[in-house]
Amino acid sequence: MWLQREITLEPRPRGFHLVTGEVEQALPELSQLDVGLCHLFIRHTSASLSLNENASPDVRRDFETWFDAAVPEDFRGWTHTLEGPDDMPAHVKAMLNGVSLHVPVVAGKLALGTWQGIYLVEHRRKPHSREVIFQFIGSRKA
Amino acid sequence: MWLQREITLEPRPRGFHLVTGEVEQALPELSQLDVGLCHLFIRHTSASLSLNENASPDVRRDFETWFDAAVPEDFRGWTHTLEGPDDMPAHVKAMLNGVSLHVPVVAGKLALGTWQGIYLVEHRRKPHSREVIFQFIGSRKA
Amino acid sequence: MWLQREITLEPRPRGFHLVTGEVEQALPELSQLDVGLCHLFIRHTSASLSLNENASPDVRRDFETWFDAAVPEDFRGWTHTLEGPDDMPAHVKAMLNGVSLHVPVVAGKLALGTWQGIYLVEHRRKPHSREVIFQFIGSRKA
Repeated sequence: MWLQREITLEPRPRGFHLVTGEVEQALPELSQLDVGLCHLFIRHTSASLSLNENASPDVRRDFETWFDAAVPEDFRGWTHTLEGPDDMPAHVKAMLNGVSLHVPVVAGKLALGTWQGIYLVEHRRKPHSREVIFQFIGSRKA
Repeated sequence: MWLQREITLEPRPRGFHLVTGEVEQALPELSQLDVGLCHLFIRHTSASLSLNENASPDVRRDFETWFDAAVPEDFRGWTHTLEGPDDMPAHVKAMLNGVSLHVPVVAGKLALGTWQGIYLVEHRRKPHSREVIFQFIGSRKA
Repeated sequence: MWLQREITLEPRPRGFHLVTGEVEQALPELSQLDVGLCHLFIRHTSASLSLNENASPDVRRDFETWFDAAVPEDFRGWTHTLEGPDDMPAHVKAMLNGVSLHVPVVAGKLALGTWQGIYLVEHRRKPHSREVIFQFIGSRKA
């Protein structure tokens, strides 16, 4: 079976946000699925999707600190500065993190590891609503 | 339905190249598809595929500037230098960007966001032809 | 057809490890498949999967050198240090590399490029067993 639809993630400030619960709530169909693959695709160039540690808020803060240091707003090479000092760093961070997420489904649940959670990463200072296309391919429960 | 075939992207100089149009032209089947998932896979270790801003050439130039600064040819840790000073940086950049791209198809079109375009990123100085395996899984238009 | 199962990769020390052979051996079904897509998903937050050069050990060593320099254990921004100095760098490196790998299957074989191999990247100092969910979607040989 094939399932495709769009979900909207609410605006969030810049940072690494744990959204596993919000994603699962937006996908009531999950419980009816058996095995297969979920694909989440964020339709933006300055926000990204990723998977990482789901417990400690300090991990998510440290991610932000490292990315801000690695892709600084005051990097001297930027020429695309018309949209603000956070725009070009947002594009680079989004490329490093990626816009597609793939999670196996096993017995009607996202088969995340014990410590894995879904991150929405907002790279702009100003919160934006973010559109995500959800797709599932696999089998439905008997 | 399942569709798989190979496309060749023409040689390009080092840099971030917007190839959405070239990819779409190489895939005339797209218009016959309804919903599903496209997978593009580049069969190389020093070129990559990515999605980002499709409008400003200065964004693509800034990407290159940042990656060259983050993964410099004169990094003192390189030991694999036999294939030239651009070889090992090319491998690292290709790993950071990735070799697989996944784009949902909706109503016979790649469901890219308004600002998203497909990038072929050539990391070697010398232009190379790049082989890409295209796969589609989903449904055909009725 | 749809195929899903779990494989366990043996514990390895920190570094970039070429595991193409181990993955293929763990997947005897591959030879019965015709065309389709393999998805490999590592259920961890401090190890990753990637594809890169399959020949020179010095390439894999240089990857490690670069990542250690880019995401240093002594980065002054870390606050999540309870689990050891290698924990937060492991999370960042895992995010940069990614936890999902997608490889087309053509005629019963992983359609890797000539120079592409599968990497298991262990980011912790202490070796850990790593669980990988393997999925295949496509068609079986007639």
